[in-house]
Amino acid sequence: MRKSIKTVGIIVKPEHAEASKTAAELCEWLGRRGVSVAGEPRRAPRADAAEDARDVEIREKSDLIVVLGGDGTMISAARLLKNRETPVIGINYGSLGYLTEFRIEELHQALEPILGGEFFTEERTKLDVELWRGENRVACGTVLNDAVINKAILARIISIDVSLNGSFVNSFRADGLIVGTPTGSTAYNLSAGGPLIHPSTNAFVITPICPFTLTNRPIVVSDESQIDLTLGADSDGVMLTLDGQVGHKMQVGDRVAIRKSATRFIMVRPPNRSYFDVLRDKLRWG
Amino acid sequence: MRKSIKTVGIIVKPEHAEASKTAAELCEWLGRRGVSVAGEPRRAPRADAAEDARDVEIREKSDLIVVLGGDGTMISAARLLKNRETPVIGINYGSLGYLTEFRIEELHQALEPILGGEFFTEERTKLDVELWRGENRVACGTVLNDAVINKAILARIISIDVSLNGSFVNSFRADGLIVGTPTGSTAYNLSAGGPLIHPSTNAFVITPICPFTLTNRPIVVSDESQIDLTLGADSDGVMLTLDGQVGHKMQVGDRVAIRKSATRFIMVRPPNRSYFDVLRDKLRWG
Amino acid sequence: MRKSIKTVGIIVKPEHAEASKTAAELCEWLGRRGVSVAGEPRRAPRADAAEDARDVEIREKSDLIVVLGGDGTMISAARLLKNRETPVIGINYGSLGYLTEFRIEELHQALEPILGGEFFTEERTKLDVELWRGENRVACGTVLNDAVINKAILARIISIDVSLNGSFVNSFRADGLIVGTPTGSTAYNLSAGGPLIHPSTNAFVITPICPFTLTNRPIVVSDESQIDLTLGADSDGVMLTLDGQVGHKMQVGDRVAIRKSATRFIMVRPPNRSYFDVLRDKLRWG
Amino acid sequence: MRKSIKTVGIIVKPEHAEASKTAAELCEWLGRRGVSVAGEPRRAPRADAAEDARDVEIREKSDLIVVLGGDGTMISAARLLKNRETPVIGINYGSLGYLTEFRIEELHQALEPILGGEFFTEERTKLDVELWRGENRVACGTVLNDAVINKAILARIISIDVSLNGSFVNSFRADGLIVGTPTGSTAYNLSAGGPLIHPSTNAFVITPICPFTLTNRPIVVSDESQIDLTLGADSDGVMLTLDGQVGHKMQVGDRVAIRKSATRFIMVRPPNRSYFDVLRDKLRWG
Repeated sequence: MRKSIKTVGIIVKPEHAEASKTAAELCEWLGRRGVSVAGEPRRAPRADAAEDARDVEIREKSDLIVVLGGDGTMISAARLLKNRETPVIGINYGSLGYLTEFRIEELHQALEPILGGEFFTEERTKLDVELWRGENRVACGTVLNDAVINKAILARIISIDVSLNGSFVNSFRADGLIVGTPTGSTAYNLSAGGPLIHPSTNAFVITPICPFTLTNRPIVVSDESQIDLTLGADSDGVMLTLDGQVGHKMQVGDRVAIRKSATRFIMVRPPNRSYFDVLRDKLRWG
Repeated sequence: MRKSIKTVGIIVKPEHAEASKTAAELCEWLGRRGVSVAGEPRRAPRADAAEDARDVEIREKSDLIVVLGGDGTMISAARLLKNRETPVIGINYGSLGYLTEFRIEELHQALEPILGGEFFTEERTKLDVELWRGENRVACGTVLNDAVINKAILARIISIDVSLNGSFVNSFRADGLIVGTPTGSTAYNLSAGGPLIHPSTNAFVITPICPFTLTNRPIVVSDESQIDLTLGADSDGVMLTLDGQVGHKMQVGDRVAIRKSATRFIMVRPPNRSYFDVLRDKLRWG
Repeated sequence: MRKSIKTVGIIVKPEHAEASKTAAELCEWLGRRGVSVAGEPRRAPRADAAEDARDVEIREKSDLIVVLGGDGTMISAARLLKNRETPVIGINYGSLGYLTEFRIEELHQALEPILGGEFFTEERTKLDVELWRGENRVACGTVLNDAVINKAILARIISIDVSLNGSFVNSFRADGLIVGTPTGSTAYNLSAGGPLIHPSTNAFVITPICPFTLTNRPIVVSDESQIDLTLGADSDGVMLTLDGQVGHKMQVGDRVAIRKSATRFIMVRPPNRSYFDVLRDKLRWG
Repeated sequence: MRKSIKTVGIIVKPEHAEASKTAAELCEWLGRRGVSVAGEPRRAPRADAAEDARDVEIREKSDLIVVLGGDGTMISAARLLKNRETPVIGINYGSLGYLTEFRIEELHQALEPILGGEFFTEERTKLDVELWRGENRVACGTVLNDAVINKAILARIISIDVSLNGSFVNSFRADGLIVGTPTGSTAYNLSAGGPLIHPSTNAFVITPICPFTLTNRPIVVSDESQIDLTLGADSDGVMLTLDGQVGHKMQVGDRVAIRKSATRFIMVRPPNRSYFDVLRDKLRWG
């Protein structure tokens, strides 16, 4: 496919010595090939911190992002990119990740053709999430995996009213509720009993966490849906969590409005490893 | 919406006295309104029987099909219709059905506006299913709910190789495997641990039945997918079942090819009852 | 069976006007039959409050405890009773409870024979739970339902090492973990995917909550087992909760030691309603 | 522990060349140690075949049974032993089995102390299963894993009435139903969604297979229970299967009566490998 790569941004897993070392070597390796590095290799901004000029530089100047770390580092790279559709390649240091599908040993061999503009990508849907309190939007964000509403630790079960395109679905009494993308289907959703969803599926999943009513099964809906979650009475200390990294306290009556993002996350894929190859490895189907 | 109804076909649940009585009364009621009945009210042809001229007449002449019975009768009406997209209204006699969403008490009140051409419909995706033995297509059919591969009663676990768009997914060792539409998600799929799928979702679900490997979870895939199931060795007495009504014996090496049908099943919807209203009632979420 | 009832203790659901009214009427009704009431009808002490003399009086003087409320009130009555094996009758005001199996309409009819000493009881196993920090026992309690370890709301998954009679079982990575009695099997355990356990079974259940590893299924063990749960590293803000009512903060390395209580909880049973009658009603099997 | 071993019976997995070779070598190895072999190494009698004199000889003369094969061979060895409580050691050729916990490489090292009478055993509960048609007992057997009622391949859902100690539990509509021992909890029960049960637990599990009603969860009951399963109407071509090896056709109204066997299955355990060591390996918890 597409245009060759002139500038690379490098995102490194925090406090991971080997990843930092790789980053330094990679800068040199890229320099020898006439490719510049946007700013310097660094971690993505913390969930609760403001971004600084270096984050902006990486976002705006990079033709490609190299992530050195694990799936969590990919998630934070997606957050840094905001609505930029820059391709991202994920490099893992241990076992394969759902998002970091290249092994560190494959780094140079994988990058070589990519710099020349030859690579496969996969588009992953994201969710725009807004937290509304009455008429005020008190928080918003975009997620690659999921938006989760969770009860506080000592709280009783909470109650969440769900509607789909304005039509009432159900009032869920549960420990919490997950709204996930296909990408997020292999994350928290899977532990909570939800299905696997292939990334090419135009769908989201709504998965109650430990629901009081046993027939409250996960629901797959079209990714054209507008999903609204309203927090019911007697629900203290509840938190909305975005991609497991950013938390917002919720109050009774708060509404979480969720719909598909206008932009996608662009993942570079290994040419010889399919989605199901990774899945079989991660879930030990072999 | 659309054109008014001139001719109605009536499909009756077999051996259901009340449905037969309703059918007779309905013929009269329609006659008084100048609406003709295609052929005569009758059961849909049995799964294992050839259709006769009366089935063809109902299929070709009706502007609307009235089904008097339950979800099973709707399924057989869908089979009778083949690739005709005639709207079908399902009338139930006891509890609401997932497909028969009108109660018998609502029959006349519901039909009145429909005959004038005023009604809501919902399009349901179907699956085309082909059974291949080497180069020969030995059977085919179209399903509204699901295609199921099941082991024989005394057989050991069977092995089914699944591929998606020609790419290997997994070799499932299980009691069987379900490929279901969103409509079928509330049928066998739900009992086997699969998710609910809203009918507007462009997706199918692949659900292993009692898989040997516990991480073999249901997989939701795009309804643009080509799904192929190949029966592995040591799999005796295996059956392919279409919508739970039509069975075909399978041999080792047989391949079941599944993709979305070109035509849809058109359900007439109650104006005041949503998909989730029915779901909450059926699954006793209240 | 046994000796007639001279003194009755009455435990009332807090802030439940109807239960308070019933309590007043019941005192009179009992007085007319020459049965005295221990202290006065009152709520059980709050989980986080010290008990006072009136609690002690109810515990030490009553031949029978009448609980007016729901299952939560039964749980707190069990806590008040400590190691006394006084029979308890649970009266509910709405739908049947798992523990409050008598309806308010049945109150007098049920009590009449009980006061004469004629009634059926069922013994329910309890768990003694101790929280150890190094050599110090920092908390302890007895539960009728379950002891639960839960992660804090924004925490990552936590890690809990489980051993059975000193032998290593597994290191669970999950949102938390439940150790439940047969009585508790219909509570949190059921929402988390655990099995039903008939109350006469000499067994406990260990159920991980949303485990990271999908094959970490609930484990049923003998009620003669010593169960030890040790909190692993990177587990901040974790809480041990007893019967969903009493919470204790945990630190990394803390150990929760669990074994069967020496004393049981004695429930008065309706003569004409079995455990499964209640279960079918509660789980809507009908 | 106990008396030294004078005579060993050898049961070999059918059509397994390596196991046959091991058996021949083992005879010689035992002979050199003055230990005789009961009859000759052979497969256990087929499920549908009558036993012959050689089976009787192995059962009656052996102080120890060596099983060379996998879990299925252990199951058939248990069937051969009937009510004899002869210790059995299971040797596997590939991965560990739940019942064959010794590896072929460990054979001699494991047997050496056993012949001298030094070994650990674990007692496993079995189930006596009787099939009643009116007043006639038409079949019976003893199982180590489970008794399973299963619908025929094209049948609709079947209906099974379950009672416990004569008290009605529920009428299950499902693909089938499993009654399993703790040993059987890791077999079919696990695939059907049932819990793990530690072998020392005095409990059985009743697990519906793909139940129509989603709240029909597995039920753990005391192993002192009398369990009765009665086949409901409209249930054609149903089969009762014992340990997955022996099948009996059932008719509507047939009753399956199940209770704990008077005798146990005695497994020799590796001194350095616990039940949970095997479980972690088999379920890939590592």
